[in-house]
Amino acid sequence: MPSTLSYQFSPIGIVHSCYKEKFGIPRQPGLVTEPTARLELIPPYNRLDTLDGLSDFSHIWVHFIFHATASEKWKAKVRPPRLGGKEKVGVFASRSTHRPNPIGLSVIQIGRIYTENNKVFIDLIGADLLDQTPVLDIKPYLPYADKIADAEGGFAPSKAETHNVIFSALAESQCRKYEDLHKKPITTLIKQVIEQDPRPSYLSNQVDREHGISLWDINIKWCARNDHFEIIKIEYE
Amino acid sequence: MPSTLSYQFSPIGIVHSCYKEKFGIPRQPGLVTEPTARLELIPPYNRLDTLDGLSDFSHIWVHFIFHATASEKWKAKVRPPRLGGKEKVGVFASRSTHRPNPIGLSVIQIGRIYTENNKVFIDLIGADLLDQTPVLDIKPYLPYADKIADAEGGFAPSKAETHNVIFSALAESQCRKYEDLHKKPITTLIKQVIEQDPRPSYLSNQVDREHGISLWDINIKWCARNDHFEIIKIEYE
Repeated sequence: MPSTLSYQFSPIGIVHSCYKEKFGIPRQPGLVTEPTARLELIPPYNRLDTLDGLSDFSHIWVHFIFHATASEKWKAKVRPPRLGGKEKVGVFASRSTHRPNPIGLSVIQIGRIYTENNKVFIDLIGADLLDQTPVLDIKPYLPYADKIADAEGGFAPSKAETHNVIFSALAESQCRKYEDLHKKPITTLIKQVIEQDPRPSYLSNQVDREHGISLWDINIKWCARNDHFEIIKIEYE
Repeated sequence: MPSTLSYQFSPIGIVHSCYKEKFGIPRQPGLVTEPTARLELIPPYNRLDTLDGLSDFSHIWVHFIFHATASEKWKAKVRPPRLGGKEKVGVFASRSTHRPNPIGLSVIQIGRIYTENNKVFIDLIGADLLDQTPVLDIKPYLPYADKIADAEGGFAPSKAETHNVIFSALAESQCRKYEDLHKKPITTLIKQVIEQDPRPSYLSNQVDREHGISLWDINIKWCARNDHFEIIKIEYE
């Protein structure tokens, strides 16, 4: 009986991401053009030869575990954010985390492949993955097979719209200082994360209310104004 | 320590496929335009409501187990068939079955979604999956996220070339008889499978040698001629 079989998997790697909490993660990869994360290969897979030839590809598929919600029960019907959280669809017609097997799938642009302190890393550009996400597998994205020219998209027809983001004078100077110190393009990252509107839908009508969001070790204070989003200030150790 | 964690998964479904053995399976999905398989949802997932809205999509991602080779050891370097079986690349730069976690990924066009004898089925068009493949998850293919316009393909730049296939008079009449009896478009299926050249590479230079291949309950005898492939005859109960 196939239904009684089960399979056991151990991660091949772990994600180190700027996203320390679910709140604020863009709802799809590729919206941010900076490395938002890096994948560390776990022993015994921490060998550069397992990645030979990978740099000839621009993108990889990442099979990962929805580890933050893995202990929650699956649901037959879910509310995809793209439908405004109102309509329900079947779980297998969605990319919801509340799946029978909590396996996620993201196509992610790769950056540098390198070793550091005897560890093997791949930079993940615009990855939409939570910090400490366990990774089960990575595979090259094969355009001839994976890019389906005539695929139809159901309820999710196009890219999400983005909002205009303005930094206060204080936030701008704080970001510049951080960039000088850490050599990380944090201004671009903040802009690209906030312009997606990371507010949960029940807060999406609130204007002039201060929100906080964490990226790497930085806490960002921002709010929605009438016709734009404003970065008020940033805080870090 | 994340490396010591492991995760247990049970299949949500099982594949009933025309491919009873690895030999003959096209090396990517989508090359055959007929349903080559159907997915049966396993209890407790055998509910139509888990699939609500799925018919608005044309394609799904299927996460499956490489069950025929799951007990084999992973290899750090593998020989992808696209490189003629000669060159080696890292396992994570390939779609090889010899992976640390034997999870496969295919994007497959869906056909009818239906119930039959209280079981729930999805027809899978051109699926490249072995019969009895356990399925861990299915997800809609989202063109806005999954169709990467500028992805670069490494060693696998384009579709495989196909060969000219000719049916003998005997094979043609046998196929017609089978189609009348079973209402399955077996002629198209045979043509589309054989035109991919399903021979293992060590036999790919042999001309006029008879090969056998099974599709559904049919055994097909065929051979390579100088400038085409010939279907000699088919056998079935």
